[in-house]
Parts: sequence; structure tokens; C-alpha cells
Amino acid sequence: MTPAAASAPPARAYRRLGVEERRAQLLGAALTLFAHRAPDEVSLDEVATVAGVSRPLVYRYFPGGRQQLYEAALRSAAEQLILCFGEPPVGPPTERVTRVLDRYLAFVDEHDTGFSALLRGGCVVETSRTSAIVDEVRRAAAEQILLHLGREGAAPGPRLRMMVRTWIAAVEAASLIWLDEGKRPDAAELRDWLVDQLIVLLAATAATDRETASVVAALLPLETAGGPAGRLAQRLVPVLGEAAHLLPES
Amino acid sequence: MTPAAASAPPARAYRRLGVEERRAQLLGAALTLFAHRAPDEVSLDEVATVAGVSRPLVYRYFPGGRQQLYEAALRSAAEQLILCFGEPPVGPPTERVTRVLDRYLAFVDEHDTGFSALLRGGCVVETSRTSAIVDEVRRAAAEQILLHLGREGAAPGPRLRMMVRTWIAAVEAASLIWLDEGKRPDAAELRDWLVDQLIVLLAATAATDRETASVVAALLPLETAGGPAGRLAQRLVPVLGEAAHLLPES
Repeated sequence: MTPAAASAPPARAYRRLGVEERRAQLLGAALTLFAHRAPDEVSLDEVATVAGVSRPLVYRYFPGGRQQLYEAALRSAAEQLILCFGEPPVGPPTERVTRVLDRYLAFVDEHDTGFSALLRGGCVVETSRTSAIVDEVRRAAAEQILLHLGREGAAPGPRLRMMVRTWIAAVEAASLIWLDEGKRPDAAELRDWLVDQLIVLLAATAATDRETASVVAALLPLETAGGPAGRLAQRLVPVLGEAAHLLPES
Repeated sequence: MTPAAASAPPARAYRRLGVEERRAQLLGAALTLFAHRAPDEVSLDEVATVAGVSRPLVYRYFPGGRQQLYEAALRSAAEQLILCFGEPPVGPPTERVTRVLDRYLAFVDEHDTGFSALLRGGCVVETSRTSAIVDEVRRAAAEQILLHLGREGAAPGPRLRMMVRTWIAAVEAASLIWLDEGKRPDAAELRDWLVDQLIVLLAATAATDRETASVVAALLPLETAGGPAGRLAQRLVPVLGEAAHLLPES
């Protein structure tokens, strides 16, 4: 290497990379761009610039152009997100869900514009393939939640399954609103509120569904007074006090 | 009119209609088709056949072809749905929401395939215009719910607004799952569960948000032991009994 080449800044372009390494580098550049900009605002020229390579090289790896690159970046982001969901099934379940939501919201924060554009619909790069990837992430999220509810392996009944999928949709919707509102309240406050939602949704579903009632009965002994379920229960006491006229006199 | 013409069945094609009347007739035919089939499976020829007119006549009214017809049909369906949301602000609020959800689920039932195709994403006719129509419906739904929460006129705070929008997203998600599951459980059971969700979501949000707490305090006296809030409260008593270890000893 000549001294001139050594001091030239983006010498990466001329470094020889293996096929997989190069592909990963291009995907990384694409992900960075698609995370913070609407898909139709990202051009292949920019991907080439950010990766420090030529436009034809990007086309050699992604002959389908922007659409193919977008789908590959989405798949890579989806795999990353699914990894975030993993959490060992030990300790109070609401604390496990809290940690999963922390990682999820960090991902949403990190991929804000791309996350909104993809989930809002009417996005130029949206196809049945991109929808299938999003659905795969939702399915993985549902499986993880069912695992922490102690229903892994056992096929959950329709109401419990519907409850989990509905809560996941609520989390997604709340994340989009959070981005709309300039990421307010802070992520920790939003996360606590989403955990509270899961707790009360479980309780409300347990009120009419036998399977959910037995799930709740099995989980409650794992919860503590100082954890999310305890804090919520204590805050609910005054709210419930105002509802005394709804209960039969005992 | 000759006796022959009087007995001929689909003489509608030859009846002269005013411009508005004809447009409404074409839209009606389009809505029927788009309600029960995926948008890309509906052709202009079919719309012409169902309306009993020629294909060129459909094009005269909708020169933009299927896309324009789809958007006009969607707008018309959206207006119809927004009308469903209207409910006089009298009586127990949970009973009002129950009636609104009844009409909403009847609409979902009536427009099943079109509803799914539109909201699932990756739909061929989806554009920023169709997304804007869907968002308009969601906004109208949020305004109606806020009205029954006694917050019409007053600008609701961010947490209450986020809560209402999140519940609406949950209703939408549950409706899609309901269609996926062959419309099981029956609409009344789904509706009751969605009302329960709103009640517990209000309670959980009231636990940490002052505005929501005052909304709940104002609504509770309007509720009765025999209504949705009373039935849920009574069913929650045994579930809460299992959570005694989460509460401070009193």
C-alpha cells in the first residue's frame, strides 16, 4: 500500500471482501438508510456511497435494485428483532416481558422512520413478501409471549391466542403513536404502560375464559409486590374502590 | 312501457338514470364486489355486469379504472362506517360502546374480505390515498370514544389519546383475527370481550395518569351492576383474590 492510499479516507471501496462479507456490508448500509428514511427516498446511489462502493457493484449483489435490497434489509432487521424477543423463562413473568419490551422499543427507536413507513401501509416497497416478513415477526412475538405464559408446547386455545395477538397489535400501534408524538413519553414509561396493559388484558380475559384463568392462577405466585404486577395492583386499589356499587353486597 | 319490457328482468341497464344516481349504482356494485373479494380479483367487466351496464359506461364514470373505482368505493364504505360510530351520549357509557361495537362488527362481517385485504397491507390497490381514508376512519372512531369518555371539546392529554388509539388498534386487530378464525367466537362474545378490554385499559391507565383517573371517576357512577362494567367487576373478584400477596397487608 502506498502512503497516499493509506491516507485516503474511504479506502474501503478498494478493499477486497468475500462475497458474504460484501453482501453483509451492503445490507448494513441499506439498513442504516432504510431505518431513518422513507423507502422511496433512498436511492441505490446513496447505498453505494454509504457502503463506499460503486453503483454497479450494488447491482451485482442485488440485481433487483432497490426493491430487492429493501426486502433483504427488512429480512435482516426482522431476524435482529426476533432475536430481541428471546428471554430466559425464569423469574417473575412481568419482569421478563419488561426486558423484552425494553429491547423492542430500543429497536423501534433505532429504526424509527423505516418502522413507521413499513407498518403504516401505502408504502411503495410494500409487497406480499414484505407483509409475510412482518407477519413472521408477529408470529415469533406471539410464540415468545405464550412461552412466558407457560403455554409453550401446549396448543393455546383460541381466546388466549387472540388475546396475545391483540396485545401485540396494541404494542405495535402504541409504538407508531409514540414515534408520531416525538418519542414521548420516554421509553421506560411507555414500556411500563404496555406491561400494565398485558396484565389487565390477562385478568379481563381470565374473567371469561377458563384456560386464561388457569394461566393467570399459575403465573400469579411468581409475581412479587415490588414488581410490575404488584405496583399495578396497588395503584388499582383506589380505582376499584370507586366501583363498589358495581359489586354485590357481601 | 310494453308488457314485454315490464316482464324482462334486468331492464335496469336500459333505464336512464341521472348522473348521481348512475354513479351511486356503479359504486354500489363495486362495493358489493370489493366487500367479498380481494381487490385484485375484481375486474371492471364484473362491476359492469353486476350493475347491468356496459364496460365503457363504467369507464365514463371512472376513467381511472379499477383504482379510481376502488378508492371511491372505499370512501363510500368509510362514510358508512363513520355513521355506525354515532351514538347518543346518554346511559351507561359501556352500553353505548357495546352498541357501537355491534354495528362495527356487523360492518366487518358484511365487508369481510375487503376489510381484511385493505388492512393487512401488501394490497395492490393500497396507496397513500387509501391509507389516508383508513386513518380518517380511525380518527373519527377516536373522537367518538372520547365523546363517550366525556372529553369532547376538551383537548385530551397525550396518555388518554394514546390509550384510545391503542384500543382502536386492538379492536381492528381482533376483528382481523376474528375473520381469520372463521368469525368465531360469535360477534356478541367478541364484542363483550372488546368492551371488557376498554374497561380494564381505562382502569390500568387511570392507575398512572391523572386525567384518565378523573375520566374514570366521572364515568363510574353512570355504570350499573347489571351492565358490562358490573359484570366484569364481579367476574374479576375471584381473579383478584389470587393476587392478595401483591397488596400491602391492611
